[in-house]
Amino acid sequence: MQRRDFIKGAGIGALTATAALTSNMAQAKTKYRWKMVTTWPKNFPGLGTGANYLAQLITQMSGGRIKVKVYGANELVPAFEVFDAVSRGTAQIGHGSAYYWKGKHPAMQFFSTVPFGMTAREMNAWIYHKGGLELWHELYGRFGLLSFPAGNTGVQMGGWFNKEINSLADLKGLKMRIPGLGGEVLKRLGGTPVNLPGGELYTALATGTIDATEWVNPDNDLAFGLYKAAKYYYFPGFHEPGTILEAMINKKAYASLPKDLQAIVKAACQAANLNMLAEFDAKNPQALITLKEKHHIEPRAYPQDVLKQLKKVSQEVVAEIAQHDKFSKKVYTSYNRFLAQSIAFSKLSEQAYLNARN
Amino acid sequence: MQRRDFIKGAGIGALTATAALTSNMAQAKTKYRWKMVTTWPKNFPGLGTGANYLAQLITQMSGGRIKVKVYGANELVPAFEVFDAVSRGTAQIGHGSAYYWKGKHPAMQFFSTVPFGMTAREMNAWIYHKGGLELWHELYGRFGLLSFPAGNTGVQMGGWFNKEINSLADLKGLKMRIPGLGGEVLKRLGGTPVNLPGGELYTALATGTIDATEWVNPDNDLAFGLYKAAKYYYFPGFHEPGTILEAMINKKAYASLPKDLQAIVKAACQAANLNMLAEFDAKNPQALITLKEKHHIEPRAYPQDVLKQLKKVSQEVVAEIAQHDKFSKKVYTSYNRFLAQSIAFSKLSEQAYLNARN
Repeated sequence: MQRRDFIKGAGIGALTATAALTSNMAQAKTKYRWKMVTTWPKNFPGLGTGANYLAQLITQMSGGRIKVKVYGANELVPAFEVFDAVSRGTAQIGHGSAYYWKGKHPAMQFFSTVPFGMTAREMNAWIYHKGGLELWHELYGRFGLLSFPAGNTGVQMGGWFNKEINSLADLKGLKMRIPGLGGEVLKRLGGTPVNLPGGELYTALATGTIDATEWVNPDNDLAFGLYKAAKYYYFPGFHEPGTILEAMINKKAYASLPKDLQAIVKAACQAANLNMLAEFDAKNPQALITLKEKHHIEPRAYPQDVLKQLKKVSQEVVAEIAQHDKFSKKVYTSYNRFLAQSIAFSKLSEQAYLNARN
Repeated sequence: MQRRDFIKGAGIGALTATAALTSNMAQAKTKYRWKMVTTWPKNFPGLGTGANYLAQLITQMSGGRIKVKVYGANELVPAFEVFDAVSRGTAQIGHGSAYYWKGKHPAMQFFSTVPFGMTAREMNAWIYHKGGLELWHELYGRFGLLSFPAGNTGVQMGGWFNKEINSLADLKGLKMRIPGLGGEVLKRLGGTPVNLPGGELYTALATGTIDATEWVNPDNDLAFGLYKAAKYYYFPGFHEPGTILEAMINKKAYASLPKDLQAIVKAACQAANLNMLAEFDAKNPQALITLKEKHHIEPRAYPQDVLKQLKKVSQEVVAEIAQHDKFSKKVYTSYNRFLAQSIAFSKLSEQAYLNARN
């Protein structure tokens, strides 16, 4: 380097350092006002309160430097416009689940849940430590978004039925509210999947518009009063074995934060992820007791041969997503490889233990 | 209130407000240097790296306002002096597991794990949302400590054996390294429990000093090379179905932090809790493949009748802790009530799903 260049270089260096320092100090003082749009009714048990918990953590940990205000569905934007609203920066953060956005790309479903797929713990392992999050960021990055897991429902319930399911024949002609891939599985077995918003399930079931509906888990199902409109409660929820609730974040909004606040947002999502599942796991056992003892609901297992066929068709339906494009294939391959390994481990760990203990 | 008192009161109020403001500003500028003492060798996979992760989260989220330096076992204090060191304030935070301190109080074991007890998810549900944490704080408070879950191993493995276990008769005379309540269970079934530090297991097994040893899970067991010293690898680890790793915090050190840093420490523990289990769940399946394919280890299930008897004796041993004092009875009752409810839910949720899928 020539002397003239060196002097010029040093000058620029000093200027840059001063600018950086000023900018850091400005950032440390800046107050951020974030809007969180959600796909849930405000304060909806588990899901909505999980979004509140995330917002509170960010606000508390940042000492109010980021204030997050939570909006229920339709308060700022409708539930199914949350993705677009955060993508274009109308809100800085959103709370939903990736399979709602499968119209943008079918591979999104792998970042929520797929029929006969991974459990909550397996999803966390894949997302945080086996490349899942990188794939998710690759996909959401196309829309100007970052994404982190921020909750989980655990294995859901099979659903509420007014028709007994004794064999595969009973699925034929069954009108059931079951959206997404679970619905596609039912369709291939002769049923008629219907999509209805949560608020309409009770009436549709009570009036016979539908024969059956899935919803979430005992705690959420009890809150909706579905036991009053259906005779049978089936398990397990093969179609949603460990659904991730997501925090999607506008990339520019995230990039504008100083490093400590970025770390706070990220870790708050991880803490909220655990906390939602812990809350569901705490409440579901009591909700189940209430359903049994107060409302005389005796949950029934899907028959073995029905489950076997549901599994076979589920695997076909999930494999078809891989055919959509190169990226879908990449996600499917990563997901399926870890799932297969994880099943082998689960057989001598979680599954073996539960079978010995229960 | 008389006028004189009112004026005096207002004066004190103003002084107090000014003092509080000054103190808040001082607190916001204060840099905290925390020592984290741990019961693990420095950087030990999963457990030690989990402690590192917690320390990093606190340092990053606080923008360096709390700098946490991690010490491995024996660097500052020996492993089993971690509790006392944090209790007296030699270190501000410690990373271990509550059953190590059962000599202080037998009820501590409920905050780690007990044989045939709760899984990782059930522990989180009980601790965070069913009163477990309040009981834990009541106990640790006696020692000037706060405590939070900061990791979990999931269901551990049964252990490494040089003797086949085909019936209860094979447990008689079995010299096995299995500490704590699991050891007590073995003893009542005619075995000889031995306690040895992790570093001595390989040699003890290889030289025949012991017939068997439990350790942690495939990932940790592979790292220790135990497959080279034993013929059989049994599952499931009935004695440790979901062991919590703890962060214990000196109460005065915690109280001296401003509210935002307190929130950071607390949420960092929750994030680290999830992350350790996710990391183990990510690594165990691969470790299992390596054990099988490279080292030709074919894990074996404990026979059904052996498990049945282990369960019966485990329940007796755990129930005896309740006899120690009123507080132990209170913890046992809370734990056992939720466990019973949770088993009923698990049967139609996690267990039913794993049995259908695997």
